[in-house]
Amino acid sequence: MKTIRITCLCLLMTAAAMAQQVPLQWQEVQPGIWKASAGTPEKISLLKAAGATPDKASLQKLPAARFPLPQADITMRIADGKVYLKFPLEKEEQLFGLGLNFKTVNQRGRVSQLHMDHYGSADNGRTHAPVPFYVSSRGYGVLIDAARYITVYAGTAVRVDTKNPPELIDRNDKNKNWQSMPYSDGVEVLVPAGGVEVYVFGGPTAMNAVQRYNLFSGGGYLPPKWGLGFTQRVPTLYSQSDILREATEFETHNFPLDFIGVEPGWHSMSYPCTFEWDTQRFPNPKGFIDDLAKKGVRANLWINPYVSPKSSLYAKVKPFAGTHTVWNGLVTDFTFPEARQIWKEHFIKNHISLGVSGYKMDENDGYDKWLWPDVATFPSGTAAEQLRQVYGVMMQKMTDEWYREQNQRTYGLVRASNAGASNFPYVIYNDYYSHQDFITALVNSSFIGVLWTPEVRASKTAEEWVRRMQSVCFSPMAMLNAWADGTKPWSFPEVEKAVQDVAMLRMRLLPYIYSTFAQYRFEGKPPFRSMNLIDGFAYAAQESGGKLDATHNPYEAKTRSEVKDQYMMGDNILVAPVFTGEKSRKVYLPAGKWYDFYTGALAGENQAITVKAELEKIPLFVKDGAIIPMIPARRQAPKAGEVLPLEVRHYGAAPGSFTLYDDDGTTFNYEKGAYSQVTLKVSKDKNGRLAGEMSAPATGKPFGYERKVNWVFMTK
Amino acid sequence: MKTIRITCLCLLMTAAAMAQQVPLQWQEVQPGIWKASAGTPEKISLLKAAGATPDKASLQKLPAARFPLPQADITMRIADGKVYLKFPLEKEEQLFGLGLNFKTVNQRGRVSQLHMDHYGSADNGRTHAPVPFYVSSRGYGVLIDAARYITVYAGTAVRVDTKNPPELIDRNDKNKNWQSMPYSDGVEVLVPAGGVEVYVFGGPTAMNAVQRYNLFSGGGYLPPKWGLGFTQRVPTLYSQSDILREATEFETHNFPLDFIGVEPGWHSMSYPCTFEWDTQRFPNPKGFIDDLAKKGVRANLWINPYVSPKSSLYAKVKPFAGTHTVWNGLVTDFTFPEARQIWKEHFIKNHISLGVSGYKMDENDGYDKWLWPDVATFPSGTAAEQLRQVYGVMMQKMTDEWYREQNQRTYGLVRASNAGASNFPYVIYNDYYSHQDFITALVNSSFIGVLWTPEVRASKTAEEWVRRMQSVCFSPMAMLNAWADGTKPWSFPEVEKAVQDVAMLRMRLLPYIYSTFAQYRFEGKPPFRSMNLIDGFAYAAQESGGKLDATHNPYEAKTRSEVKDQYMMGDNILVAPVFTGEKSRKVYLPAGKWYDFYTGALAGENQAITVKAELEKIPLFVKDGAIIPMIPARRQAPKAGEVLPLEVRHYGAAPGSFTLYDDDGTTFNYEKGAYSQVTLKVSKDKNGRLAGEMSAPATGKPFGYERKVNWVFMTK
Repeated sequence: MKTIRITCLCLLMTAAAMAQQVPLQWQEVQPGIWKASAGTPEKISLLKAAGATPDKASLQKLPAARFPLPQADITMRIADGKVYLKFPLEKEEQLFGLGLNFKTVNQRGRVSQLHMDHYGSADNGRTHAPVPFYVSSRGYGVLIDAARYITVYAGTAVRVDTKNPPELIDRNDKNKNWQSMPYSDGVEVLVPAGGVEVYVFGGPTAMNAVQRYNLFSGGGYLPPKWGLGFTQRVPTLYSQSDILREATEFETHNFPLDFIGVEPGWHSMSYPCTFEWDTQRFPNPKGFIDDLAKKGVRANLWINPYVSPKSSLYAKVKPFAGTHTVWNGLVTDFTFPEARQIWKEHFIKNHISLGVSGYKMDENDGYDKWLWPDVATFPSGTAAEQLRQVYGVMMQKMTDEWYREQNQRTYGLVRASNAGASNFPYVIYNDYYSHQDFITALVNSSFIGVLWTPEVRASKTAEEWVRRMQSVCFSPMAMLNAWADGTKPWSFPEVEKAVQDVAMLRMRLLPYIYSTFAQYRFEGKPPFRSMNLIDGFAYAAQESGGKLDATHNPYEAKTRSEVKDQYMMGDNILVAPVFTGEKSRKVYLPAGKWYDFYTGALAGENQAITVKAELEKIPLFVKDGAIIPMIPARRQAPKAGEVLPLEVRHYGAAPGSFTLYDDDGTTFNYEKGAYSQVTLKVSKDKNGRLAGEMSAPATGKPFGYERKVNWVFMTK
Repeated sequence: MKTIRITCLCLLMTAAAMAQQVPLQWQEVQPGIWKASAGTPEKISLLKAAGATPDKASLQKLPAARFPLPQADITMRIADGKVYLKFPLEKEEQLFGLGLNFKTVNQRGRVSQLHMDHYGSADNGRTHAPVPFYVSSRGYGVLIDAARYITVYAGTAVRVDTKNPPELIDRNDKNKNWQSMPYSDGVEVLVPAGGVEVYVFGGPTAMNAVQRYNLFSGGGYLPPKWGLGFTQRVPTLYSQSDILREATEFETHNFPLDFIGVEPGWHSMSYPCTFEWDTQRFPNPKGFIDDLAKKGVRANLWINPYVSPKSSLYAKVKPFAGTHTVWNGLVTDFTFPEARQIWKEHFIKNHISLGVSGYKMDENDGYDKWLWPDVATFPSGTAAEQLRQVYGVMMQKMTDEWYREQNQRTYGLVRASNAGASNFPYVIYNDYYSHQDFITALVNSSFIGVLWTPEVRASKTAEEWVRRMQSVCFSPMAMLNAWADGTKPWSFPEVEKAVQDVAMLRMRLLPYIYSTFAQYRFEGKPPFRSMNLIDGFAYAAQESGGKLDATHNPYEAKTRSEVKDQYMMGDNILVAPVFTGEKSRKVYLPAGKWYDFYTGALAGENQAITVKAELEKIPLFVKDGAIIPMIPARRQAPKAGEVLPLEVRHYGAAPGSFTLYDDDGTTFNYEKGAYSQVTLKVSKDKNGRLAGEMSAPATGKPFGYERKVNWVFMTK
């Protein structure tokens, strides 16, 4: 009888919630992070699937934050078996995030249904990381923690009873400024589930909100040093000897190479996969990996998750598989520990124990027509929709754990990610290939706690080739993916030198890049950052167009400009990629003085500049007082125990400092304190001359640099 | 306690259904039409919103049909609060319908989420008529009667336990024919609701299934005769005198004109709408309509459904409005009879009583960013999603009723329709403008009980202009929509004669076209028909492509050819539009001999032919023995009481007959038997010579033709 009474009460409460929007009740769960529940949250969610564990110590170090919104204006309603949420929105507010978008940065004025899928050329929520998290230009973030196809109306919906109604304008009156999208004062969210948990991340800045979001799931992943070197993915059906020959070619061309990606062909069958070595092409996997290792090169294996009937895993996995196949393969229900254990044993025994450094986990995202359908059912009772939203995350978590158990860092690729995955060792990629849009994805990745690589595959011209190689070297993974095209870095001999130069420049910058990733890990700051997260960046969006055209613009909609083709790598380097055909490009500098990376010359101050596009160089700018630690050019990332000379550059006239991070580069010992953080500091002496000094590293901690630093003051 | 026990029982039943797919239980509800329920169907559905009433008498006349599928193989499961359905599918089966698609005809191998929306250039289920009905080439149809965003996996999903598994092929083996989409033996459907009613429509032919589907909602709409004449929509902000001048210009150019569309500008405010006349532009609405009527021209008024705060309707509608505005206007919850009554009184008093002939009901479809969001709630408790799916249908039904009450047929335009709407007087249109895709939409409209017009707005060249005008004259509504472009039929003087010719040809064909619409009404046969519904049409789809391309075709998918640019107008005329730039085109003729419409010469027999594209003519072909009744060229459709000379053409050598339908052309008296059906018959006399005769019309029934027929035997 008690159960029944409780049920009745619940029904009454539901009825009440249906009647009107009621405010959510907030609880601070970490400093500056608040949580609220609506209805009965589901057993599986994005954060639960990711097993997100807050890095409490790092969260404590962030500036204090107040609840950033008027709580009475955050309301919920349960109707039609779904949760409806509303968040307030001020007039000039911009919204960022809401999935890995490729064409747009500011999401205000857009409707997205966040749906795990291969990106299909339109920013509509169907993407590889449909993360239901947005960051406001007003300095806070909101996460809807549901593994569901969430619809977000980001400042499009207008309520009859709003306190801030849009102006009423007659479209018939041609003189007035009628708008197809009247002003909306709210973000409204539809969660197709009976309940959900929602998080608000405080600022005070947008960057702080992103930091909290990343630290809430443990902070960003710190890749092994070799993961930040160059990687080549070889063509499908390459044999072990083909691959060893490829590695030798990289030596001959003096081109960086830290790891090689082995594409379909290593499995005895793939599509669907056996996850077992093909004995023709790979007669001796262990020998192959050892031979590669002798060249300082690691192997990364391509997989997709669908288990072939020809695999020894098939019979074991079947009891834990969904009702539907993908490409004739079983879909494992990874919510079962037993299922994960079956995979683990197989993968450790057959790959990881042989020295395989990581995986490329393909095709866990879409498309609808070949993934398991939403009518599939799974033995755990998890809905197909839920599994679709988190499958990539569950694979990341599972494989990450395998490597953590070995005390070995990995770094690989995945095509599906979601909220809570910042702390996983994976970079997202896809089959799409617009160079411009790839850079916009890199910009957008910074809002949602994921990494993205604008991988290079092929190009029509040498110019395109060098432009793509330049930008991929300023991304989380410097990768040439030749699986279908058989390209090499030197495929266009006329630009081989320029391509080698930029790859070597990345290698020289490794101390800077590695320290930047340490920031991601310990401070939650994304290594590659949208300008919209940068202090002092201001850009007044321009509206243009709006001319009536019966077919192409029947509602006289205007187009809003935005900055989506430049970004920051770490705190100090502004990257402004150049695209094929461009002879020059505009660069929007944040406040203050900015300097040319290559020459140290002043590039501009508080302004947008136009820079000439030299074919050999990607435009890079450094802010006043910035310090950039570099090492000599080399083909491979430093190994544990190596001690390298440091060149430390300083730009501009202002004093500055930089925290140089180091550790053994491959294990998780840093989690137990086995790392160094030294301060590189430039100050003015009593004569007003700049001078640099490095603090002493703590004894007994890994530190791979010589104590004597070559200080270079770039700005004369 | 009883309630509790019932609840428990329901829960148990639900749990049982969750455990496995169970067969649906079928009941024959009309001859050859079966219904089954899954779960608890919702209060609102597509057919319920349309108020679909079967035409039982006409259904009785169709050939007998058996249940077309193995019942045990049609299964359902309730999981995750949704209904999952599975229908069997044979190897060579093709599937048609599933919404108003613009690019594809055969939907097998596609996934659609049927979602009311403006068509966005991709066949993905978001369209103006997201009808969850499919017709199989094996001669049956399936309707999922839910006003929800239904996802249909039309032969894409593959079950682990299927009896018909696809062949297992290793993609690594380059010699084998690996497919990105393995064979699937089922159509699977996700209905995001706790219950649904499903219908199966028997054949034996695909056409029979479509007929049953249309007759189940009362048969197709028989437009007034004037509705089949030419219509011009004038630019926005045209005044009443501008419009009268426009009508005079049509007289001067001797160009057909039966009704004029009045676009935004007639309302005192629009976007949002007042539905009240603007006194500046329309100082005397009644006089304006009377003046037009003197010219034999009717007025059709543009509206969208959003009620302006400046309208006298606003305060009255507000208690029945949803929580959100669209373009600052209220969204009426039309499920309330009181709300419909408010609209009715206003519209009858202010428009219909003045002689307004009908409406163009715009913007009841999408896009998401300006329609009411799915988080909107409505006072009736109807979900926003449900209302979105049926809003256009509810507006069609409501306005149709107004005119029925006046015993006056109307014929207008709508941008949103759905299942059950065959019997409504509306033609769908949109803002998209690919000429080829417009024709494919016309082809696809025939599967789903809707009408579509490939309206003409503007063209880049005279050639495009004449090509577009030709095909719109062979569609349900011959319309030039100049709302934004100000075009006239004679906008390209060099082709004025050719455009006038095709418009006049349509006028000459009115007896044929009107009889064809009578077939739609009484037999359920769509007036404009896909070749796939035609006896003797066979086309072997070709697969091509499949070449690996890392960016454009990473899964080596093949492209399937299909016939999507030709169609039948009624039983006898095959229309093969020519597109800009084409010097010739291929035409796939159904079995038998086919003749050139213009010359009567044999065009081909059991073959695909290539025809030269003459600029002045749209290629038309007539089947052997076909009879085509025609009247002299004229600017306006015949009026009640007129008696016209008939020219009856016969093609080929075979005998044949044709049922010529007639009635008063404007009222519903035909529903009470006030119509004629005479047989036009050509037989061979004893000398083997063809001779024609017309049966005598019944006395006392409207019949607008002279008894003496001019028989023309086109084939010498």
